[in-house]
Amino acid sequence: MYFIGIDIGGMSIKGGIVDNDGNILFKKTIETDLSKSGDGIVDDIVLLIKGLVKDDGLDLSNIQGIGIGSPGSIYDEKGIIRYSCNLPFDNTQIVKIIKDSLKVKNVFVSNDANCAALGETKFGAGKGHKNTFLMTLGTGVGTGFIVDGKILTGNKSAGAEGGHIQINIGGEKCGCGQRGHLEAYASATALMNQIEKAVEKNPTSILAKLYKEEGLNGKIAFEAKKQGCKVAAKVVNKYIKYVGMGLVTLSNLFFPEIIMIGGGVSNAGDDFIKPLQRYVSKNVYGAKYAPKIKVVAATLKNDAGIVGAACLAM
Amino acid sequence: MYFIGIDIGGMSIKGGIVDNDGNILFKKTIETDLSKSGDGIVDDIVLLIKGLVKDDGLDLSNIQGIGIGSPGSIYDEKGIIRYSCNLPFDNTQIVKIIKDSLKVKNVFVSNDANCAALGETKFGAGKGHKNTFLMTLGTGVGTGFIVDGKILTGNKSAGAEGGHIQINIGGEKCGCGQRGHLEAYASATALMNQIEKAVEKNPTSILAKLYKEEGLNGKIAFEAKKQGCKVAAKVVNKYIKYVGMGLVTLSNLFFPEIIMIGGGVSNAGDDFIKPLQRYVSKNVYGAKYAPKIKVVAATLKNDAGIVGAACLAM
Repeated sequence: MYFIGIDIGGMSIKGGIVDNDGNILFKKTIETDLSKSGDGIVDDIVLLIKGLVKDDGLDLSNIQGIGIGSPGSIYDEKGIIRYSCNLPFDNTQIVKIIKDSLKVKNVFVSNDANCAALGETKFGAGKGHKNTFLMTLGTGVGTGFIVDGKILTGNKSAGAEGGHIQINIGGEKCGCGQRGHLEAYASATALMNQIEKAVEKNPTSILAKLYKEEGLNGKIAFEAKKQGCKVAAKVVNKYIKYVGMGLVTLSNLFFPEIIMIGGGVSNAGDDFIKPLQRYVSKNVYGAKYAPKIKVVAATLKNDAGIVGAACLAM
Repeated sequence: MYFIGIDIGGMSIKGGIVDNDGNILFKKTIETDLSKSGDGIVDDIVLLIKGLVKDDGLDLSNIQGIGIGSPGSIYDEKGIIRYSCNLPFDNTQIVKIIKDSLKVKNVFVSNDANCAALGETKFGAGKGHKNTFLMTLGTGVGTGFIVDGKILTGNKSAGAEGGHIQINIGGEKCGCGQRGHLEAYASATALMNQIEKAVEKNPTSILAKLYKEEGLNGKIAFEAKKQGCKVAAKVVNKYIKYVGMGLVTLSNLFFPEIIMIGGGVSNAGDDFIKPLQRYVSKNVYGAKYAPKIKVVAATLKNDAGIVGAACLAM
């Protein structure tokens, strides 16, 4: 039997046919038509699903379930997308519309970060583990928590906002309006702010040189550090500490077996993951006696959304 | 059918026979004999259980299950108390010893904060809710999280350490050795430190007067504030903010329907709980759209330990 995973984004909507082992057998992508209403976008998703099944030579009767991952505020239990910053959803009854249109029974929706965490846990870096979390470092800090094999959502799916834990009283301003949240220190955006400030103060550093040559991105800090730049080393070490602080706080609560790091910054590989591992191992509560927590880079990368969404239906 | 709940403390061990509705039908307390080994203390608990059953005119066949709550590091799944600061447990196989001694099948152990959270959720302030947490403000900050009706423990029961979330980078030193943890700002001990500092700086304040008359305790700050003391008002308002910061961070993750506050400080009642409610309602992530979170004082008080432990077996 097969499953369908749908990964909704502001630019494109990706769909895939996924088997029981988490392999994507067939993929299809459509543009997100932002001129449409939320219901209109769901109609496009229905067509995408029909196309996926048809092009792969299958029939809807071969599909055991459909899962959808979307950014924004989702009400998992009711199958509703409440709203999403960059998409026209407004209490959109996505699960009902898809069920009615396709006459399929098993349709589920969840936040995209939750889906990615579930996908990574079932078939990616967290395979074999029951308690995990995924932290995605991008424009913001996304988190998904797997507790005893299940997504943690909180009441009416309003929880799991790990980017919005306060790590510093009265600290940096967060996108949500509050101060001192993890996201304001540990997102890729925050890293870029930290790089810009360092470059301004140190215009003759290697970091400043790379900045001029390559433009602003998180990678130049790791690259400049490798080239012996002390300014970059300071930026990177501080950033790792910030991310580590978030991981430790979340670990003291959820105590996962494994933490998975996603997002562009995780491509820095061992230069990023190894010091994070050291920070967590050293600072987690009861470090001497507590069970070990592994810190690894997420592995499903761009496919995490499709595979994770499909996992909702498994 | 009946259940037995055992509440282990550093001074005394309390046991009770609890019915299906969470009522304690019969209670018995023994002194904790700290001259004994961990196994010796468990033998005392076996005698306590036998005594409870006999004195209440029951038979062990009337007991459906036994639950034990203990401070310290517990490995719930294995039924072991790993260690506890003020008790001589050392990987003590408490569940096995009780099962073998009494020939009963359903015996469970968990951390006392977890037990209290479960008890308060099943039969106390959180009755009827599936997602809750209890924060106990005492010497430290204890927390227990109920997710979908079940205790959250994390891998090998090492999690749920809500006192040890970092709220302030490089901030006050915590009992665990780290800096900036919630416990260092929001425990009753922390409040007393905050009072002492304020009294030192303001020796002619009403707060200082009460301090001299009644000695150091959390209540005098609330009392002095009521009497119009501005120094005390500042202490109390700041303390409420610290506790609120912890509640908001934990809410953004767990998004409970209800938060229960326990420990001596919660006896300040509405003067403490109402401003906390306002702080949480205002500052929780997506406050405008998010489901409401109720903040209330725990209600089972001294019985929470016995009732909560009994709940482990229900």
